[in-house]
Amino acid sequence: MARHTARDLRSENRFEVLHALFELGPSTRQELARHTGLSQATVATLVTEFLSGGVLHIAAVERNTGGRPQERLTIAPDRGRIVGVDVAETYVDAVVHDLALGVLGHAEVALDEEENDPAYVVDGIVRAIDGAVGADATERARVIGVGVSMPGHVHPDAGVSVFAPNWDWHDVRIEELLEDLAIPVYVDNPLKAVILSEMWFGVGNAVDSMAVVNLGTGVGAGIALDGSLIRGITNNAGEWGHTLLELDGRACRCGRRGCVEAYVGAPGLRTTLAEIDPGHPLLRQQRQRDFVERVAQGLAAGDPALSVLVLRTARYLAAGLGDLVNLLDVPHITLTGWASEALADRLVPAVRDELPHHVLPGSLAGLVVEPSRVPGNAVALGMAAFTLQQFLTRLGLASPARTRPRPDPEPAGFSRRAGTVPSPGPDAA
Amino acid sequence: MARHTARDLRSENRFEVLHALFELGPSTRQELARHTGLSQATVATLVTEFLSGGVLHIAAVERNTGGRPQERLTIAPDRGRIVGVDVAETYVDAVVHDLALGVLGHAEVALDEEENDPAYVVDGIVRAIDGAVGADATERARVIGVGVSMPGHVHPDAGVSVFAPNWDWHDVRIEELLEDLAIPVYVDNPLKAVILSEMWFGVGNAVDSMAVVNLGTGVGAGIALDGSLIRGITNNAGEWGHTLLELDGRACRCGRRGCVEAYVGAPGLRTTLAEIDPGHPLLRQQRQRDFVERVAQGLAAGDPALSVLVLRTARYLAAGLGDLVNLLDVPHITLTGWASEALADRLVPAVRDELPHHVLPGSLAGLVVEPSRVPGNAVALGMAAFTLQQFLTRLGLASPARTRPRPDPEPAGFSRRAGTVPSPGPDAA
Repeated sequence: MARHTARDLRSENRFEVLHALFELGPSTRQELARHTGLSQATVATLVTEFLSGGVLHIAAVERNTGGRPQERLTIAPDRGRIVGVDVAETYVDAVVHDLALGVLGHAEVALDEEENDPAYVVDGIVRAIDGAVGADATERARVIGVGVSMPGHVHPDAGVSVFAPNWDWHDVRIEELLEDLAIPVYVDNPLKAVILSEMWFGVGNAVDSMAVVNLGTGVGAGIALDGSLIRGITNNAGEWGHTLLELDGRACRCGRRGCVEAYVGAPGLRTTLAEIDPGHPLLRQQRQRDFVERVAQGLAAGDPALSVLVLRTARYLAAGLGDLVNLLDVPHITLTGWASEALADRLVPAVRDELPHHVLPGSLAGLVVEPSRVPGNAVALGMAAFTLQQFLTRLGLASPARTRPRPDPEPAGFSRRAGTVPSPGPDAA
Repeated sequence: MARHTARDLRSENRFEVLHALFELGPSTRQELARHTGLSQATVATLVTEFLSGGVLHIAAVERNTGGRPQERLTIAPDRGRIVGVDVAETYVDAVVHDLALGVLGHAEVALDEEENDPAYVVDGIVRAIDGAVGADATERARVIGVGVSMPGHVHPDAGVSVFAPNWDWHDVRIEELLEDLAIPVYVDNPLKAVILSEMWFGVGNAVDSMAVVNLGTGVGAGIALDGSLIRGITNNAGEWGHTLLELDGRACRCGRRGCVEAYVGAPGLRTTLAEIDPGHPLLRQQRQRDFVERVAQGLAAGDPALSVLVLRTARYLAAGLGDLVNLLDVPHITLTGWASEALADRLVPAVRDELPHHVLPGSLAGLVVEPSRVPGNAVALGMAAFTLQQFLTRLGLASPARTRPRPDPEPAGFSRRAGTVPSPGPDAA
């Protein structure tokens, strides 16, 4: 059995307190102890550490009759800025958060689906971050960390994209390639980010075990069981998109045939439409996001071929979700990702109709499938939360001083509202 | 987030100490504290409780130069007897264990695959237990609990078989039907029993995350992640046999089409052989266990159709295991169950050859697939271990006195070696 070290436990306790503050809002030490199950002494020690690091501040002091005054604590949003970056096959979205993970602004850069040079992708990441943060040196200096999600297999401790099938990347050292930012970088897989978002800011407040299914170019599942995020032995857990729907079925970009992704990822939708109506005009749409958006518009306009597309896709999706539920017996699944957002209105009810044909009776009763309630970009939010965890760990391991040099001064400020940066491709959202 | 109560933690600590004793053998309090990560004070309290309940005894006292004498503790095997009962579609196997979970004897009763009356199955369970324990009243009185595994969906706290598709059972109250035994009964699903066996007595000493795949009439997976047994929200997790190999494929007894079980369960092997050679003489074998045993014999004799059967089955199995690994990123899978035991020599190497076609590169390196090393009947052993946990919980909740009446005196003793009870069907093993 793996044993936790004292340092692990200290880190975990720190995140428990942080998570409680997100859940409860401004809280007393007693409330935090009650909610986390930690001892009053442990909570008091962590709060002192957080206060001295400027991560918390005292929001109010309450005087109850007879008792001692009670300090109500809250996260200090202006202690720093955190950028969560969602790097997908067709875009980079960089979102600036305050320390309380409130969204301050974002910038999106389109990526050409055909380009796979790491330098091209890294350039897109840097431009998105620049666009979101702006060039004002004072503002840039407040950024305590950047969390970058990369599709495929990621090794967070090493900051490496181990394998990204979409770009045919092997062992690309993302963290090193982003060294010029002169900001601590945390790299992880988007499936881990979306499940953290759900656990902290979505239905995780009500359920302990769940999956969040991410539908875009690629598809996958973030999984939490009994309150723990499931990473797997190499951080590769959640590759639900590469479980079988049909042995020897459609070719998948992972090299196998018949994977779920080949049916319910955006390119899979196009394949299904081509089977339904090979001459359908939407098949001329080259860009995936344009294609899926036009499908949503065509559905609203009553296109019968697209209605068949939704029903077939719902059946494929329900079959894949059925496998996930039969194996893990989770009571709750949320859908996230740009393809899900575009189609959820029609897709989710159709999936629910199909589920009883695919889920064992013992797991079907009470099963909820719904669109994610996490606001904004759940990948970027989750990456910001991981980056905040990393920052707190650094705070706890040493003094709150920076361990990397500050960036050089540059002009301008945070774009506090959605900003868009000039894009190299025609697919900018 | 779910919070542990103090009682939960106390139960968990108790099992940690027990598990450490199984792993380490006779141990000092210091060794138990070091191994479990529990405090010396907690270990001392639990050891005192166990000693007063007769569960532990002092195996030796060591005097080191200068130090205080150290007591070396071990589980007291003769404190009681535990019967683990493996109830499958075609047989009941009851195994008598001492309190240290050493096997003292067993008895097997064949079940007619066509019979589905609960009274018939319960009669088989009672006869197997009687055969294993014997009729001596002194020996029977030493039985502190019986753990009965039931196929399908089981609710352990209620002692209920919620849904057993093989028998079309719904909400059969097994614990009540076994009341005449006058022994505490614990009911669970065999997938939970085999993964507990692996964690305590198999490769669980070396790995924290793994799956054990059970191949028999039905198939399924016991799953452990980061040292925790995965039960799911309704204790229904692990139904890997009811994940898809092929949408709209072979009919499965669960009502869906294309499930893994329809390809790699014993009836699935027969279907595959019929596809390879519809006139093959083995297809005349009516009984599943006879069929699989003859397949093993025919393979040894060089039957070419059976070699094709192994290769196709290995491909189906590798595809299903690939899904399990891609989703959960476990580094270790063991195979257990009677069909696996009969065919492992030929099947396991063929599965290993197929795995690279089905597992993502990030999860493939270091992946081990091997036959289970758990000795004897892993289902019965796991059920005995659960029953021991229950007994310790009862010990901790009240005095070690019995909470149910002792059975009436009866003659004879434990059958200390394998015993067989007359069977109603021709399929006795």
